[in-house]
Amino acid sequence: MVNDKVILAYSGGLDTSCILKWLLDKKYDVICYMANIGQDENFGEAREKALKIGASKVVVDDVREQFAKEYVWPAVQAGLLYESRYLLGTSLARPCISVGLIKCAKENKAKYISHGATGKGNDQVRFELSCYSLWPEVKIIAPWRLEEFTTRFQGRQDLLKYAAQNGIPVSVTPKAPWSMDANLMHISYESGILENPDNEPPSDLYLMTIDPKSAPNKSVKIQIRFQNGLPVSVETGNASYDNPLDILTFLNKVGGEHGVGRIDIVENRFLGLKSRGVYETPGGFILHTAHTDIEQFCMDKEVYRVKQTLRDRLSDYVYNGFWFSPEGQYVRNCIALAEESVTGVVKLEMFKGNVFVLGRSSPVSLYNQDLVSMDKHSDFSPGDATGFINIHAIRLKEYNRFQKQNV
Amino acid sequence: MVNDKVILAYSGGLDTSCILKWLLDKKYDVICYMANIGQDENFGEAREKALKIGASKVVVDDVREQFAKEYVWPAVQAGLLYESRYLLGTSLARPCISVGLIKCAKENKAKYISHGATGKGNDQVRFELSCYSLWPEVKIIAPWRLEEFTTRFQGRQDLLKYAAQNGIPVSVTPKAPWSMDANLMHISYESGILENPDNEPPSDLYLMTIDPKSAPNKSVKIQIRFQNGLPVSVETGNASYDNPLDILTFLNKVGGEHGVGRIDIVENRFLGLKSRGVYETPGGFILHTAHTDIEQFCMDKEVYRVKQTLRDRLSDYVYNGFWFSPEGQYVRNCIALAEESVTGVVKLEMFKGNVFVLGRSSPVSLYNQDLVSMDKHSDFSPGDATGFINIHAIRLKEYNRFQKQNV
Amino acid sequence: MVNDKVILAYSGGLDTSCILKWLLDKKYDVICYMANIGQDENFGEAREKALKIGASKVVVDDVREQFAKEYVWPAVQAGLLYESRYLLGTSLARPCISVGLIKCAKENKAKYISHGATGKGNDQVRFELSCYSLWPEVKIIAPWRLEEFTTRFQGRQDLLKYAAQNGIPVSVTPKAPWSMDANLMHISYESGILENPDNEPPSDLYLMTIDPKSAPNKSVKIQIRFQNGLPVSVETGNASYDNPLDILTFLNKVGGEHGVGRIDIVENRFLGLKSRGVYETPGGFILHTAHTDIEQFCMDKEVYRVKQTLRDRLSDYVYNGFWFSPEGQYVRNCIALAEESVTGVVKLEMFKGNVFVLGRSSPVSLYNQDLVSMDKHSDFSPGDATGFINIHAIRLKEYNRFQKQNV
Amino acid sequence: MVNDKVILAYSGGLDTSCILKWLLDKKYDVICYMANIGQDENFGEAREKALKIGASKVVVDDVREQFAKEYVWPAVQAGLLYESRYLLGTSLARPCISVGLIKCAKENKAKYISHGATGKGNDQVRFELSCYSLWPEVKIIAPWRLEEFTTRFQGRQDLLKYAAQNGIPVSVTPKAPWSMDANLMHISYESGILENPDNEPPSDLYLMTIDPKSAPNKSVKIQIRFQNGLPVSVETGNASYDNPLDILTFLNKVGGEHGVGRIDIVENRFLGLKSRGVYETPGGFILHTAHTDIEQFCMDKEVYRVKQTLRDRLSDYVYNGFWFSPEGQYVRNCIALAEESVTGVVKLEMFKGNVFVLGRSSPVSLYNQDLVSMDKHSDFSPGDATGFINIHAIRLKEYNRFQKQNV
Repeated sequence: MVNDKVILAYSGGLDTSCILKWLLDKKYDVICYMANIGQDENFGEAREKALKIGASKVVVDDVREQFAKEYVWPAVQAGLLYESRYLLGTSLARPCISVGLIKCAKENKAKYISHGATGKGNDQVRFELSCYSLWPEVKIIAPWRLEEFTTRFQGRQDLLKYAAQNGIPVSVTPKAPWSMDANLMHISYESGILENPDNEPPSDLYLMTIDPKSAPNKSVKIQIRFQNGLPVSVETGNASYDNPLDILTFLNKVGGEHGVGRIDIVENRFLGLKSRGVYETPGGFILHTAHTDIEQFCMDKEVYRVKQTLRDRLSDYVYNGFWFSPEGQYVRNCIALAEESVTGVVKLEMFKGNVFVLGRSSPVSLYNQDLVSMDKHSDFSPGDATGFINIHAIRLKEYNRFQKQNV
Repeated sequence: MVNDKVILAYSGGLDTSCILKWLLDKKYDVICYMANIGQDENFGEAREKALKIGASKVVVDDVREQFAKEYVWPAVQAGLLYESRYLLGTSLARPCISVGLIKCAKENKAKYISHGATGKGNDQVRFELSCYSLWPEVKIIAPWRLEEFTTRFQGRQDLLKYAAQNGIPVSVTPKAPWSMDANLMHISYESGILENPDNEPPSDLYLMTIDPKSAPNKSVKIQIRFQNGLPVSVETGNASYDNPLDILTFLNKVGGEHGVGRIDIVENRFLGLKSRGVYETPGGFILHTAHTDIEQFCMDKEVYRVKQTLRDRLSDYVYNGFWFSPEGQYVRNCIALAEESVTGVVKLEMFKGNVFVLGRSSPVSLYNQDLVSMDKHSDFSPGDATGFINIHAIRLKEYNRFQKQNV
Repeated sequence: MVNDKVILAYSGGLDTSCILKWLLDKKYDVICYMANIGQDENFGEAREKALKIGASKVVVDDVREQFAKEYVWPAVQAGLLYESRYLLGTSLARPCISVGLIKCAKENKAKYISHGATGKGNDQVRFELSCYSLWPEVKIIAPWRLEEFTTRFQGRQDLLKYAAQNGIPVSVTPKAPWSMDANLMHISYESGILENPDNEPPSDLYLMTIDPKSAPNKSVKIQIRFQNGLPVSVETGNASYDNPLDILTFLNKVGGEHGVGRIDIVENRFLGLKSRGVYETPGGFILHTAHTDIEQFCMDKEVYRVKQTLRDRLSDYVYNGFWFSPEGQYVRNCIALAEESVTGVVKLEMFKGNVFVLGRSSPVSLYNQDLVSMDKHSDFSPGDATGFINIHAIRLKEYNRFQKQNV
Repeated sequence: MVNDKVILAYSGGLDTSCILKWLLDKKYDVICYMANIGQDENFGEAREKALKIGASKVVVDDVREQFAKEYVWPAVQAGLLYESRYLLGTSLARPCISVGLIKCAKENKAKYISHGATGKGNDQVRFELSCYSLWPEVKIIAPWRLEEFTTRFQGRQDLLKYAAQNGIPVSVTPKAPWSMDANLMHISYESGILENPDNEPPSDLYLMTIDPKSAPNKSVKIQIRFQNGLPVSVETGNASYDNPLDILTFLNKVGGEHGVGRIDIVENRFLGLKSRGVYETPGGFILHTAHTDIEQFCMDKEVYRVKQTLRDRLSDYVYNGFWFSPEGQYVRNCIALAEESVTGVVKLEMFKGNVFVLGRSSPVSLYNQDLVSMDKHSDFSPGDATGFINIHAIRLKEYNRFQKQNV
């Protein structure tokens, strides 16, 4: 009898190593899938470990270019921001990894996908909705939601014991008192000591950005060029970058060196819990700041208002795991239409945690210096504003009359 | 014959001094009204000047407490932000000053109000809509929109000449190559050299905030307490403040010293023009940052979403001059209802242009550390998430089926 | 040992009778709860039946007044309409019944609530979310979602067999080839032959309304008076009604006689399925028509726009079962604020399926006949409109210029 | 000297005939432009009249096909409805006529456009914004907003006197005590005796539709086929129509015969006045009813919600005269994207004022009879709903806990 094949989203850590072994115990044929999405990981070591535990195959998939181009770039173009502050670094990675998982499953004729996401979090939803949307027939094994598994592994100690019993190598570095998730766009930190929302995150937590207080006294200036709302190049004194992966990598470096892009928030998870998250998104924050500026410079006032409501909806869709959904696809298309006019250059300066906008220009902006200038005569006469105001006042005067009626 | 009385919103500057004289030439009896709304102004000198030119009376009205309590505080509570970035410092001042103007007009039995706002800007609209809403019968004289006036005074030179001819004292300080408007909440700068949106604002422009690069190397920490979404006290190492005016004054000081609250944006005016504005709002920015944090900590997820759409609408109303309007009043009331649960303390740190949130706590937050903790069993079983995901997947699977139908 | 007590939402039909017996088999002490919410039901007979099967008690609770006043009236005030067409008759009944269930459970010290709603529908969600919100500790038994139950009862035949085996009386009338749910506000019909959305509902399906084609040739006229957006009286030629239950009962009668309030739609269920529903809501439709008319007559233009977005949200909340939720409560409060100005009388005529609005009046409307009249001079001069238009044209002209730039 | 050329939007009535003469008095060279947009008009007679008065040329432009295809069809596709009830018949005609006016102006090298719309209404705004957007350089003469004109012509008597003095023929039919505007889509009636919103419109007012009470006792059934949200054909027992103009003409006929599509509302004009309007839109109402039905049948639930908010915005844009605007164009494009899935057939029955939907079908609908059927096992297990409900209950239970905290 041939065992059923499972593609396991494998990280090399304790949890997914134990899950790997547990799936093998359950007589599955397990293929470990690792997406290289920009996290700092020794993939070779992880591969060794998985094979040693018993994986029949380990697939390491470099999805960094897709991630930057097909997920981060549209998010920048849309100006996505969850609950006004979170740049969605993890949320954007999940559908990208899911594409890799499904591809791997189909290539290896596997019917099952498994992952180590927990039962209270958002990532389980994002992975699974993405997978179901891409391939409705797929079967998913989420051990952290199976009573059999959670009864056996009630805490980290049970996992460590199981690892010891099964010869699973365990990192000698003691686990940090929080969990983290990293990719090309950001690192997120949560749980453990961060669960008390009044606790300041320890200074050694951050891995992508320097403490703004230790950042250089000398600022750095760059220029970002946008076309149709998408970043197309970054220029600095002595270099320029012009593809998404290079741009993002460069901005992470320069942003990290200047301590930009940290946030500490309490957010609402899809499941309805409030959760505290600490994020560092250096390059993403710079891009968001620049895009916000050039967008308002180039886009029509009323189109902007429609687009902002679409942005708020898309932010929720993406956070909740609906990247691949009718509404996700639809709203991305609508936003791309709105961004067709967003073309130009933003000048920026990074300094000790700040990203300052220094100026912006565009070959096609709706901004009209002559029109706005107080020293120039324009297309409309000042007297027109009198009529404009008087007409708007009609309703207000009527309301005043109405209120007196009520007395 | 008794001359018609006009209440002139007087600033002491060249424009309104010439308007004062011009109104006198037109045989009006002019009472100059000056609101002390926190701007740095020598009211005594301005009074002298107005009387010397021929004003029959000068009223200096200290509206700082009302401004802080009745305009800035509701704006903080609502989280107002125009086009995602502008904190509305000038927009909030206009209705407050208008109340003073109308009060002054009624007390002095004047039928006319006059102001020096220009014909391309937002302030004319804000003043006049506020006045018409408060007192529909009022008549407004806006010289910069009258052909007779604009023909005579085509530029600054004409005003200077008229001032010289009429013995109107002119400041010896040369005019800055931009215009500014100041109040307790902020200073805004626009026009002149700022009209080119690619020009970086000169470093000597800012008057409320130090350059972040020159700010102290040592940060400062404070705590802000909110009740029902309104700031009720600020505590620092050695002092505390507990009324709106004192809180705002203190935060302006500490924010200014640490260079926080500067922005440089292109915005859409109500009249439809795009305009470049530079703003510094030290205290307002600190309050906005703190409120944003405590709000998300305390407010229900879905109420938050409704409230954000109301905030966006109210931001437009306020920017456009509809503070006193059915919709302005209505939406403020709705937002106040949503903020009833927003009570707690935010810890903040100011450092070289940054405002960092260090932590937050609340006696009544919806945040539930036990519920979110990965180490605790909760009210719901992990298996529930499976059902949650599967149900959400129904629609996505159907869409996949649908798309295949289309092929 | 004392058996655990269950409150069963009992209808007297085959399903809940079998569930009653099944719960007894499982050693529960079952109290049957029947809400009299206006459905056409022989409660005495149902009580007999339940006691005969083995219920320890049967509670018949007349909630008609609460339903009309606390659920239907706020829905009329808000103008609720799900997906532009459905008046939410069933959705409104569920939270009302849930209040009764929880009250009954607490009075009888029961920890469990059970119901016969199916696993694909909306009602399970509405009942359970209402119950959990009102009493988080309650335990719910939903047999149609339990594998043990659904395996045993795979179809109607299994239920009939079980009934026969257990001496459960079964109605001699053959079951209609659709299911229905009735209350004071409406009857809904779905499933069975209605599942094919292209099948016209059979003419003998409708129980509250006559076929418009058979309705009287003579129309009937009534007047409905609203205060703060709530109906306060209905007047007809020879009678008047002034409490919610009487008004609704009367309007159902007159509406039913004239064949008004039928709709046949495909709607989106909360679970994501599309479902075909046929509804008849005679009184509710008349009230909705009248309220829509008086609201637009009395409410400020911009407040109306805000209120409509709130209405759309509340319609979704109510449909999805979130009547008792932070957002449901909040938005109802906001809408009630907006409706404070909605006071007046609407004249209506019912004729063969139609509800015609014949006129409306209000002691306090914002409608101003003098202002709108073309024959009267008003507060604003016609020339003002020129300025109004010219200012609005600025942005359009700029866009024209912009588009040429692009070429 | 050559006189400046004016294109006058000419109707043949008293007002525009007097305006024509007045413009000639002012030494303009006047070309009369008449759009045949489906109104019942004797264009030959009107042409004679204009030439007799002194027009240098009369252009009669048949725009019926463009109107149906480029304005009415997109409105049906979008489901446009102003303030929940008005189908926008007049609003849609104005931009269509404006295109003709601008084309006529350019062809005849005229710099001016003139019209007879009044100074309190919406049409002046719609005409002028459309013209400015299409051709920013155009100059507009709106006599009813010019003091010179309104002083001279203070009422209908002054116009009649002027006509008599200048040999302008006046219709012998006495003017109805209301004004009307007709086109292919609808007739609107307002002012005069209709200004009292409590007056029932007289029965002889309606010209497109029979009184429902006098409509045939025998109903008529039709089928409308939609593709991408646009009507592509109508089938009746013995005929079918497949281009926009023919479809609309046929539906007007059948709708008119059965008395469908009348409404009587008070609406909010763009200028802020409330105004009473009576409309009859037989074909438009049938199309709207059918589209609403097929749209909900075919469109994804969440895409539908986004599309409805876009529809509400577009309805306001179109009503206010912003058909040709960045936001109008943008939102139409977005809606067209959403409608790509709206393809199918709706069966309808017209009877004495009613339009009943009898059924609908689609080759590609998201409706899945197997999935929704209670008799079929589906892709998800009933137990999944338990998890779905429990997860949604988390937030509600927390809120209950929160409220107790507050006590």
